[in-house]
Formats: sequence, C-alpha cells, structure tokens
Amino acid sequence: MALTATEPAASTGSFGPATALSCRECGQRVELGPTFACEFCFGPLEVAYDFTPGAVTRESIARGPKNIWRYAGLLPVPADVADLPNMNPGLTPLVRADRLAAELGLRSLHVKDDSANPTHSFKDRVVAMAVEAARTFGFRTLSCSSTGNLAGAVGAAAARAGFESCVFIPAGLEEGKVVMAAVYGGKVVAIDGNYDDVNRFCSELIGDPAGEDWGFVNVNLRPYYGEGSKTLAYEIAEQLGWRLPEQIIIPIASGSQLTKIDKGFQELIALGLVEDRPYRIFGAQATGCSPVARAWEAGHDVIQPVKPDTIAKSLAIGNPADGPYVLDICRRTGGSVVHVGDDAIVDSIKLLARTEGVFAETAGGVTTGVLRALVADGVLDPEASTVVLNTGDGLKTLNAVADSGVTATIKPSLDAFKGAGLV
Amino acid sequence: MALTATEPAASTGSFGPATALSCRECGQRVELGPTFACEFCFGPLEVAYDFTPGAVTRESIARGPKNIWRYAGLLPVPADVADLPNMNPGLTPLVRADRLAAELGLRSLHVKDDSANPTHSFKDRVVAMAVEAARTFGFRTLSCSSTGNLAGAVGAAAARAGFESCVFIPAGLEEGKVVMAAVYGGKVVAIDGNYDDVNRFCSELIGDPAGEDWGFVNVNLRPYYGEGSKTLAYEIAEQLGWRLPEQIIIPIASGSQLTKIDKGFQELIALGLVEDRPYRIFGAQATGCSPVARAWEAGHDVIQPVKPDTIAKSLAIGNPADGPYVLDICRRTGGSVVHVGDDAIVDSIKLLARTEGVFAETAGGVTTGVLRALVADGVLDPEASTVVLNTGDGLKTLNAVADSGVTATIKPSLDAFKGAGLV
Ligand SMILES: Cc1ncc(COP(=O)(O)O)c(C=O)c1O
Ligand SMILES: Cc1ncc(COP(=O)(O)O)c(C=O)c1O
Ligand SMILES: [Zn+2]
Ligand SMILES: [Zn+2]
Repeated sequence: MALTATEPAASTGSFGPATALSCRECGQRVELGPTFACEFCFGPLEVAYDFTPGAVTRESIARGPKNIWRYAGLLPVPADVADLPNMNPGLTPLVRADRLAAELGLRSLHVKDDSANPTHSFKDRVVAMAVEAARTFGFRTLSCSSTGNLAGAVGAAAARAGFESCVFIPAGLEEGKVVMAAVYGGKVVAIDGNYDDVNRFCSELIGDPAGEDWGFVNVNLRPYYGEGSKTLAYEIAEQLGWRLPEQIIIPIASGSQLTKIDKGFQELIALGLVEDRPYRIFGAQATGCSPVARAWEAGHDVIQPVKPDTIAKSLAIGNPADGPYVLDICRRTGGSVVHVGDDAIVDSIKLLARTEGVFAETAGGVTTGVLRALVADGVLDPEASTVVLNTGDGLKTLNAVADSGVTATIKPSLDAFKGAGLV
Repeated sequence: MALTATEPAASTGSFGPATALSCRECGQRVELGPTFACEFCFGPLEVAYDFTPGAVTRESIARGPKNIWRYAGLLPVPADVADLPNMNPGLTPLVRADRLAAELGLRSLHVKDDSANPTHSFKDRVVAMAVEAARTFGFRTLSCSSTGNLAGAVGAAAARAGFESCVFIPAGLEEGKVVMAAVYGGKVVAIDGNYDDVNRFCSELIGDPAGEDWGFVNVNLRPYYGEGSKTLAYEIAEQLGWRLPEQIIIPIASGSQLTKIDKGFQELIALGLVEDRPYRIFGAQATGCSPVARAWEAGHDVIQPVKPDTIAKSLAIGNPADGPYVLDICRRTGGSVVHVGDDAIVDSIKLLARTEGVFAETAGGVTTGVLRALVADGVLDPEASTVVLNTGDGLKTLNAVADSGVTATIKPSLDAFKGAGLV
C-alpha cells in the first residue's frame, strides 16, 4: 500500500482513494473496471489504494455517519457515497460477552453481532460496495451466486437503489433465506445442485450475451465487493477503543471475509490508526464442509474441493476461491483453521443465545463452536482480548434449533399454570 | 413536566431524572416503585421527571453512545446505564424513502426501521427500560404477556443481564416468534386463548405467590417499560436534524407506543431541543383487530373490546389499555385512527420491500397500508414531512408473504436458464 502525497481521498472521484486493481499473485496493475482475474496469470484482482497520510483520522471517522460510510476514505467509493441510495449497513454492536467469557474461562470476549445489519447478515457490507461500483460502471441489473444471505442482501440493495436483480441460489435453502431473497421483487433462480454448481453456472452466464451486462456482485464486481469486509476490521478496532483484538475467530465460506479483515487490520496499522501489535486469526468451518481446515490439518497449500453436507448452509462452499490466502494468513498470524460438527454448531447457537441474548445463524454456531474447541484445546490465550464474529441471523436458520419451542401449553388459569410443573 | 433547577440528571440515582410515578387520570403522585395503577382512581401510572434545564443538549446527546442510552438523561435509568449488561437497542435507521414517496406522490417520506434492533422489533427499547427497573427493584425473574415480539425481547434481555425468564404468549403464534422466544433458554408458556386471555391470566398471576416476585415488564413495570418508546420520538427528531416530522404513522396494539412517542415529542419541545411546530399523529390498526379505529369512526371516547382475527398478530390486542389516550392524542394533533385489511397489509409489505428494500413484519404492513389509505383519501398533506414506522421484522412473519419464493428452478446450464423464460 503506497502512502504518498496525492489528492485527499475526498476528491479523487468515483472510487475515492482507490487507484487500480492489482493482481494478488503477480502484482500486475490494471485500471479500475468490472474485472476480477489477472490477464497475465489468472490470479484474483484486488483494489489498490493511494492513501493520503493524515486524510483519515480517528476524529474524522468519529464525525462520520453511523454506518460503514464513516470509513469511506478507506474504501473504493465516492466521497458523497452517504447521500446515494444504499442500505447503509454497519456499525453493528460489539457485545461485551462477560457471561459467555465466564463460562469459557476467558478474561475478555466480545461478539461482533452483524445480525444487526439491514438484511441481518454481514453481506450487506460487501453488497454496499458492489452497488457503488455497479452504479459507476452503469450496470442496470445486479446478480450473484449465493449460499443464501447474499441473495437477500442483493435483492434489498437493488430495490433501494433502483436496480433490477436476478440472483442464483442452490435449491433447498432455508425458507427464511428464500422468502427474504424474493420479497424485494427481483428474480430468484434456484439451481439443481450445490453452491459450487451455482458458481460455475454464473461464470458461464457472465461470458454469455444473457449475462454480460449484469453486475455480478461476487464475480465481475468481486474486487469491490470484497473490500466491504474490511469495515468489520475497522469497526472492531474502533469499538475496542482503537486497538486490534489479540485473537479473532472468523467463519470461512469462500474465504473472502477472512482475508479482507486481515487487510483492514494491516491498513489501520500502516495508517497509524492503531498500534502495531500482533493478532491471531482463526478460521472456522463446519466439519461437513471443511476443505480449508482439512488442508490446514494436512499442512497442504492447495485446497482439495469437497461436496458439502452440513446444516451451516451459508458456509457450504466446497471449492473456496480464497482458501489458499486464508491458509497464508492464519499461518502468518499464528492462528489456525478449525472445524466443528453440526451438533456442536447447534449447541453453540444455544450457548450464545442463553449467555448473551444473541440469536445467531448456523455460521455463528460455527464460530462459537470453534471458539469453544480452541479453548478446550488450550490454543487460545485466556488472558488475551478475543473477538468472535456472528455474521448472520438465527431467524434465517430456524430449523437448526426447531426443538426450541414452547415449554408448555396451558389453559388461562392459575391452577393450570401451577399444575404444569413450571414453578 | 416541572422544569426546576435541581441536581443534574447525571447524579440523581437509579432512576436518573425521574422523580415519581403520577396518575394519568387524577395526577396523584406516588414513589417510584413496581406499581402500575393509581390507588385512588385505578388510572395508569406514568413516570414523572424533574429535568434540569440545560442538562441535556443536542451536543451532549451527540457525544453519547450510539444507542438509546444517548438519551439516558431523559429516561428513568441510572447515569451509568450504558455500562450495565443490556441489549442496548436503538439508533435504528431512518430510511429516506424516495422511491416509495415517488410512487405515492409524497415529497418527503422516511421509514423508521426498527427491525434493526437486537431482536428485530421496537420491543427491545421498552424491555431495556424494564430491565433497569427490575435490577433496581431486585427482581430475579422477568416475565410478560406478549403478542410475540415482546417474548423474544424479554428472553434475550434476561439472558444478557442474567435474569431468569418466563414469558406468556397466546397459542398459535408464528414459528419465528416462538423459536426466538425459546432459544434464549427461558420458559415460554403458550396459553389456550388470545392475547387478552394471556393478559388477564398475567394480572391474576401477579397477585399470586407464584408470580408476586416477578418483574412483568408490561404489567408491574409498565410505567418504566412505556418510557422506552419515547426514544423513537427522540431518534426521529435527531435524525431529521432536530425537527419534528409533520405527519407520523404509528401502529397500535395496546396503544402504549403511540402515547409515548407523543410524550417524547412534547418533552423535546418543552426542553427547547426542537422548535414547537405542529405535528399530526395517525394510529394504524388491522381491520381484523381495530377497536380504536372503530371508536374513532364512531366518535366514541370509550373502546369496545373486539375478538381479534387478523394476520397482524403482533397488533392483535382486542382490549387496548391505552386506547382512550390514543383517541385523545390523534384528536389533539389533528390526526386520525385508520384500519386496513389483511390483503392490503400483505400488499404493503411487498410495496415497502420492492421500493425501499425494507422487509417489514405485518405490523409494518399495517402502517404502510394506512399510509397509502391516508394518501388515497387526501388526508395527508403531500408536501409535509412524513414518517412511517416499521416496528418489526418480516423474517418473523414469513407466512404473510409465503407466496414469495423462487421464480424458477433450473438445471445449471445456460440452455436451461434461457429456456425458463426469465430473460
Ligand atoms: C453468514 C455468513 N457468514 C460468513 C460467510 C462467509 O463468507 P466468505 O465467502 O467471505 O468466506 C457467509 C457467506 O455466504 C455467510 O453467509
Ligand atoms: C411489531 C409491533 N409493533 C407495534 C406494537 C404495538 O405496541 P403497543 O402495545 O405499544 O401499541 C407491537 C406490540 O406488540 C408490536 O409487536
Ligand atoms: Zn497476475
Ligand atoms: Zn388516579
């Protein structure tokens, strides 16, 4: 990241401080455009910036909007982004989880609760970036391949901003996710197959006249999309009083979110917004779809694709695009990649609900389950400040805890109540 | 409201600037305690304050937490409330609804989207107040009679703050509401009957040894509970740049929320935080449970109880405690009380989703439906700034829009996609 004196972020045009796309593999730079793969080596492109030293300060951020746009100066968006129709996600609660910490024997634990976002998952953050890019590039239709949450986030953001939308999901998703995706009035196409089939189909569609004019938020707009997850890193640091957590547990589907949270932490350090202290990143997967955790265990650098079979459907990507970068980051920071089974996921959803009043979706059961496993295995430092992400909402995965229901049904009388054995 | 020079709110103890409970009917004052009905006339008690002039300013509020506790100086809570374990709801988005405004022919429309609260309804606001009162009074168990949203809000807040909980709901509520109420680990008791039966049962239970030590958030803690809805008024005014809206549409179940939003606006005027401009309050009910709207139409001051039959289950209170006060307020401010049928509720949920990307529960369909009816009937001034409340979340009332589903299910091939007639 170059830190040279150029125009301040506030006046650098549609992409703010972003200057180019650069290849994660070979470093080759190309113009900011709706492209995602390097022409030379096929590596993934990511957004490169030229930040003006001192343009973004803790104070300028504090004065900003109470959503992700307070960090607009660190994102590929125009300076007036907050005035455009967008879902304005972010600044979700960082819950001090003292009761869960006490049960696990940790000193300082927080839950970053991204279920507070407009469509109740972290996907609103990434979609917000893609919408701005789509506006700039002149797309009229938004699309995506989704494991469920992304479809709802795209549908809502398209409605708010006046785009058409057509989203693709694997058949058999949870009812809450399907209805939410459809209620905004866009098209929702279910594909006979799993997410990896959906993703392959979208890659074909984007090369076909039927799809070539569409903004696929996680395909041709992926470089911009991914940057949205940096805001999780910024918020956590700001909410901890401008300090990085010492340990953080992040769910992995494609691995994009994990890599961008690391990128966000690195930027904060480079810009002098936080002290340069070590942090450890832990990746979390469901046992039924754990290609990155398996590679970690085996000490491999290459990910062997799997066929997903888990209740954590939002994380069910068997061939994760950013898997190798996840391995790098967890290795570099002294973390690891861990998986937990479906029973532990359900138990962990209930544990988080019972101790902290946070109703997580299965992805939050995965991270909380991995937190418990890391504690049990003595991997986490119980004295270090720890953050666990809940990236989605329990209301979208009701089946996982469908055994939670009424304790008793009674007639409206004191006798009936006392006879029910509840008091 | 007395505006005399006393101690600043910050040092007046557990209830902050609150000094007494006072009877809404006869004005009789009693000490702050877990009581809700006047000893003399059985009128409802409400919280009375002694605000120190100048203690709460726009600037002091702006410096406060990014949740309802920024208004702690106007609420019956201790000054250190933000440090106590609570759900910290509020500061939900005020969405500029330009696309919906254009469809309806309004100049300035905002949606106050309270689905962003921790358990995704405005009930987190009122429960947050009751939790602080329960803590002060030394209750160990939280309870309530609920039409659904309150049960989830109490369950979560009890878990977060370390209370036991036992909540009462009518049998037959939506799955999302039941599972959410139960997942936090408290007891959930369904009563054979409707909400009014549940409420009667709770009034009995509170006089019985089995329930006398419990804090029923909307019975013996009701005066504190109700104050939570004032924060909706404060936030709307602050988010409009410290101006009151000229027209506002509020759903009615018991009528508590509507009366407290009016109280909040009046306080802001009295404290000089906003200009004293007229505002019109419109109450919204479902036709299938419209006792207040019927009384309004008939020009009665007394509410005739009804047996609810509507998909807007969260608003299904046939015998609304605060109904007469709602009539007073709507009359005084030049508003009205209007009802819309179930079909219009469903259509309005979809309209709000399609135009603004806000997925409302049925209660939001009621307010949006009433907004449309008021526009159609020429009652609203299309030039005046208008706010419509969405107080709950579409994910909790999926059945209402269950006809929203996938547009098509196809094999993962371009031919299949093109053959499906979608493009
Ligand atoms: C709730 C939730 N959490 C986490 C993720 C992981 O996202 P990524 O693909 O960036 O690893 C997803 C992806 O769909 C998700 O829905
Ligand atoms: C979503 C929603 N909106 C509005 C209300 C109305 O509340 P009140 O009883 O204060 O009129 C309720 C009550 O349960 C509710 O659940
Ligand atoms: Zn390259
Ligand atoms: Zn009285």
